[in-house]
Amino acid sequence: MIRAGIVGVSGYSGGETLKLLLNHPQVRVTYVSANNTQGPVDTLWPSLKGRTNLICHTYDPAKAVDQCDLVFLAVPHTVAMRVAPDLLKNKKKVIDLSADYRLTSVDAYLNWYGQAHTDTEHLSTAVYGLCELFREKIRTAELIANPGCYPTGSLLGLLPLVSTDTENIESIIIDAKSGVSGAGKKLAEGLMFAQVNENFKAYKVLNHQHTPEIEQILSQVASRELSVSFVPHLLPVTRGILSTIYVRCVRTPKLDAMTDVYNKFYKTEPFVRVLPSGDQPELRTVNHTNYCDIALAVNEQQNLVVITTAIDNLMKGAAGQAVQNMNIMCRFPEKTGFQL
Amino acid sequence: MIRAGIVGVSGYSGGETLKLLLNHPQVRVTYVSANNTQGPVDTLWPSLKGRTNLICHTYDPAKAVDQCDLVFLAVPHTVAMRVAPDLLKNKKKVIDLSADYRLTSVDAYLNWYGQAHTDTEHLSTAVYGLCELFREKIRTAELIANPGCYPTGSLLGLLPLVSTDTENIESIIIDAKSGVSGAGKKLAEGLMFAQVNENFKAYKVLNHQHTPEIEQILSQVASRELSVSFVPHLLPVTRGILSTIYVRCVRTPKLDAMTDVYNKFYKTEPFVRVLPSGDQPELRTVNHTNYCDIALAVNEQQNLVVITTAIDNLMKGAAGQAVQNMNIMCRFPEKTGFQL
Amino acid sequence: MIRAGIVGVSGYSGGETLKLLLNHPQVRVTYVSANNTQGPVDTLWPSLKGRTNLICHTYDPAKAVDQCDLVFLAVPHTVAMRVAPDLLKNKKKVIDLSADYRLTSVDAYLNWYGQAHTDTEHLSTAVYGLCELFREKIRTAELIANPGCYPTGSLLGLLPLVSTDTENIESIIIDAKSGVSGAGKKLAEGLMFAQVNENFKAYKVLNHQHTPEIEQILSQVASRELSVSFVPHLLPVTRGILSTIYVRCVRTPKLDAMTDVYNKFYKTEPFVRVLPSGDQPELRTVNHTNYCDIALAVNEQQNLVVITTAIDNLMKGAAGQAVQNMNIMCRFPEKTGFQL
Amino acid sequence: MIRAGIVGVSGYSGGETLKLLLNHPQVRVTYVSANNTQGPVDTLWPSLKGRTNLICHTYDPAKAVDQCDLVFLAVPHTVAMRVAPDLLKNKKKVIDLSADYRLTSVDAYLNWYGQAHTDTEHLSTAVYGLCELFREKIRTAELIANPGCYPTGSLLGLLPLVSTDTENIESIIIDAKSGVSGAGKKLAEGLMFAQVNENFKAYKVLNHQHTPEIEQILSQVASRELSVSFVPHLLPVTRGILSTIYVRCVRTPKLDAMTDVYNKFYKTEPFVRVLPSGDQPELRTVNHTNYCDIALAVNEQQNLVVITTAIDNLMKGAAGQAVQNMNIMCRFPEKTGFQL
Repeated sequence: MIRAGIVGVSGYSGGETLKLLLNHPQVRVTYVSANNTQGPVDTLWPSLKGRTNLICHTYDPAKAVDQCDLVFLAVPHTVAMRVAPDLLKNKKKVIDLSADYRLTSVDAYLNWYGQAHTDTEHLSTAVYGLCELFREKIRTAELIANPGCYPTGSLLGLLPLVSTDTENIESIIIDAKSGVSGAGKKLAEGLMFAQVNENFKAYKVLNHQHTPEIEQILSQVASRELSVSFVPHLLPVTRGILSTIYVRCVRTPKLDAMTDVYNKFYKTEPFVRVLPSGDQPELRTVNHTNYCDIALAVNEQQNLVVITTAIDNLMKGAAGQAVQNMNIMCRFPEKTGFQL
Repeated sequence: MIRAGIVGVSGYSGGETLKLLLNHPQVRVTYVSANNTQGPVDTLWPSLKGRTNLICHTYDPAKAVDQCDLVFLAVPHTVAMRVAPDLLKNKKKVIDLSADYRLTSVDAYLNWYGQAHTDTEHLSTAVYGLCELFREKIRTAELIANPGCYPTGSLLGLLPLVSTDTENIESIIIDAKSGVSGAGKKLAEGLMFAQVNENFKAYKVLNHQHTPEIEQILSQVASRELSVSFVPHLLPVTRGILSTIYVRCVRTPKLDAMTDVYNKFYKTEPFVRVLPSGDQPELRTVNHTNYCDIALAVNEQQNLVVITTAIDNLMKGAAGQAVQNMNIMCRFPEKTGFQL
Repeated sequence: MIRAGIVGVSGYSGGETLKLLLNHPQVRVTYVSANNTQGPVDTLWPSLKGRTNLICHTYDPAKAVDQCDLVFLAVPHTVAMRVAPDLLKNKKKVIDLSADYRLTSVDAYLNWYGQAHTDTEHLSTAVYGLCELFREKIRTAELIANPGCYPTGSLLGLLPLVSTDTENIESIIIDAKSGVSGAGKKLAEGLMFAQVNENFKAYKVLNHQHTPEIEQILSQVASRELSVSFVPHLLPVTRGILSTIYVRCVRTPKLDAMTDVYNKFYKTEPFVRVLPSGDQPELRTVNHTNYCDIALAVNEQQNLVVITTAIDNLMKGAAGQAVQNMNIMCRFPEKTGFQL
Repeated sequence: MIRAGIVGVSGYSGGETLKLLLNHPQVRVTYVSANNTQGPVDTLWPSLKGRTNLICHTYDPAKAVDQCDLVFLAVPHTVAMRVAPDLLKNKKKVIDLSADYRLTSVDAYLNWYGQAHTDTEHLSTAVYGLCELFREKIRTAELIANPGCYPTGSLLGLLPLVSTDTENIESIIIDAKSGVSGAGKKLAEGLMFAQVNENFKAYKVLNHQHTPEIEQILSQVASRELSVSFVPHLLPVTRGILSTIYVRCVRTPKLDAMTDVYNKFYKTEPFVRVLPSGDQPELRTVNHTNYCDIALAVNEQQNLVVITTAIDNLMKGAAGQAVQNMNIMCRFPEKTGFQL
């Protein structure tokens, strides 16, 4: 049994983490905080009425250190790198759901997030928490950079191909579609019901801050520079990301061989499902779960592979993956706490 | 004033055509039919209560010939090619909203629609009704093959580039997302509310019957064989298609030059709007209108052009374009009958 | 041809009024203003691109007086009563879509809207613009208090019964359900997509500011004090109000007789449709139209009449009714400008 | 550990029951069947991929008897009364989610469900499974008539008032709004996405088959004949029922006293939450949980109590309540198997 804290429990990722941890048999949630709102947690998240007596306070570093073994940071980027150092110095394990420790390059961070990085010390020790790729490093990590929602869906779709047939890859396009909760819980005109409902559009075309995160991991896996063209879209749903990934190849790809590669790659993974031929991932099937579903298709004439993946952006794309990381770090069975 | 008929008024395209024609100052709707349902049209389409006394009967060729100058066929494919010949022989103008007269190759028709074509005589005289491309031929056509919904959104996005810089095009990927009405009004498990709501998925990946239609027109415009990789998706909305089109180029594309080309190409078009830089097309803005909105983006490092287009699949993608075709054929001002 | 202005064109009611007027053959829109946003109107309302060159400025009373014959006030309550007096003194006709001139009692205004009324002079001359009830007075009115959205749907459902069988009414309950646009275009947590989507709830139970407006008109029609219990709910749709109205009667009501009364009452009304027995009003059928659809049911054992009505809150519930009022005031045929 | 079977696992209630039982630590699901579809259960319910190897067959009474201790019947009405008798004779416990054993009067059954009851023998021994009301009887029951979705939401809202202040009740109106899954998984035009989306309407006004079920229980509780006027509506959401209940009283009701009564009545209930004054139940908060949330309001002038309740129709309104009943029958702690 460990004692866990959540900093930023009022946002979607924080709230979802809380719900998972309250169901987790090996965790006691001992500390929750939020800076924009205080009081009983079940006022913030009314579905928790009758489930918890936790009180949410403004963040207090001393209390967090005192009451927790492990802390989830579900705060906006730039906040995490101000909060994490103290926790780490006090030997607390930290799982950061923000973007602060994902990019290894401080120049890239400055460029895409508009602020200088203030904790380069821990940046170099952070482990990118894509469980399927870095499980061994995660086991002993002190600081996890929990992957972004778009990168999770994109990378899980690309890893088997990129890691096994690197030289065959000519170019990568990712056409991603996300539900509204991906934008966080902020007040913004573009997130009002009457703006999103019965609507659909692309945004930040070729210019989304998750692009360098995807490129960094792919390049690391491929041991060569890989670029992606990334175009996100806003779906009129609350949850879920579907990514349609187009990989142009040098040699003609074969569907059967690729399917074998994917099945083998994810054979023992508890939360990745390669779908049988003919099936397509869909949001309905992965929402409220920690699964990533994947399907493959091939256009041989055009040397094109089409990979579709679906995740729940708040689960596998955020809180679910964070808890999976915790399970790995704490040597709990990896599926612990994940009910249907 | 012309007398118009609608065969298949009970489907979405037929109903939408009817609503447009009832508002059209130069048209009198004199005949409507449907084979699966009969009776007052305002029972089929309750929003028309108080607007029309038309009665819908089973299709009667003699009546259609007798009562109409021009007939819209809003019937399933394979039905149109059985109905059109008689109308054409009786000197009626025909605008076919089905797929029957779109593909010039009967082999392709057999291959993609699973049935032999039974009216090759008129197939060769049909004019593909993409107004922006074939306006001159439409003027004197007797039989219009009204474009499919996906091809309309895709082709309008690609035409300026393909027709002015053909040799620069290396490959084309179309990632299209459509509202549910695109599937027609049929009972199908995949179209039930509880299946579509809060859901999103790809379907007929690389295998949709609109693919050859797009390739046929692009190849004609380019005067060389052009292929596309086409992946459609089902959006949880009633109306609208957003297409995200990726064109890999041989030479580095320049956004400014391309924007000039697009602005020039569509300068006098009444229903195409090239958006200013920074804006993105969205369903909300085009739904219930006959507009196609277009935006451009460029990834110079990857020699990639990204074109996004939005249309209302029932308007510009079906009934609206059909009425626009009628306006051209009948020498009415092209915007006649299109209110806000 | 008259010259019309719209003050507050950036809100939903103002925008909808603009769209209607741009289609209206007898109106030229000569002036539009908004205080929170300026610039080309087609930037505010992108679906209008290519339809208008109007520029939106901060409100300027002198310009409004100079450029308009009639002005629509689509501003928040308390603003209208500061803007209207000057326009009226300059002999401009005013149609106020806000609540400022609806309640005849300044005490009720203070009580429900929290501010003292500042234009009692014109308050006494304002005509309540429920076309079906006050058409004669509207013809010669200078200032129209355009009815609220909830009151429109409720009153149209109740008028025939209340005006013909007043003594039979024991109590009235109105259970109303509105789409999100009814709350206006403001940023509010409760109107964010993720809060409204897949959700439903009651709000301001027995305490909504439209209650006294409904009671005032009913009491006037009945010539005796009538109260209503009004409970509004928020629907996860953009547009439309469905009202389910329960009237407890003294004597056993008869469905056939009541239906006759309703049919007779609305016989010549261009925008009210009493549905045939068995049909039920629905949002889909009235949205984007100026119609109010009505159905009746009776529970004889319980002396209960159930009246269901549906309107588009932005059309018959706001802009549509405002334009209908303009048509009456200007002696245009009442359906002018209302397309399908 | 008990062995449980689900007959009718392909419908919404059956599927939801399965998901709950797969999470239940004291239950092994040993048998599932469905007559319209066969094969691996994770093909029927793709979100279960990787969670179960159960195979769904056509119903086989011998196998059900052989493999189960307790059987959930999630079949259409009239089917349950043909399946249950054999199971009961073989000493299996049965929880019937259909309507077959809810109405004690066979005349009422014939009248509302259109078929003669064929198992009057067990009808008389069935216990109505509203846990909060009949917990003691449920403990020893062999056959549970699991309550309908609408009755659950209505009765939980009315029980405290009706049981403690019976004589004060003059009349009851229930205005209920349900998500689409309440209608089951059948193909029907009225349940297609394009019919339900952005729509709202009443149906079966004063004529819904759940009316006599509500009246029967209320009358039993009140020890006198009580009638209700029940009007259901179809919400454009997948899940959830919100009921707005209007009770006209003889004496002036007091909010504080009523709130005390409700709090006391549900004090020890694990799945009923009486909300603090000012809060309103909403679907979002109860969906995917077994909770029923309740709020009260009073219009003293009109002697009117307004009770609002929210449940997830598939959970507390069907599968959740069924599993709660099983917990009671099997002496498991009542919250077992219900995660957040």
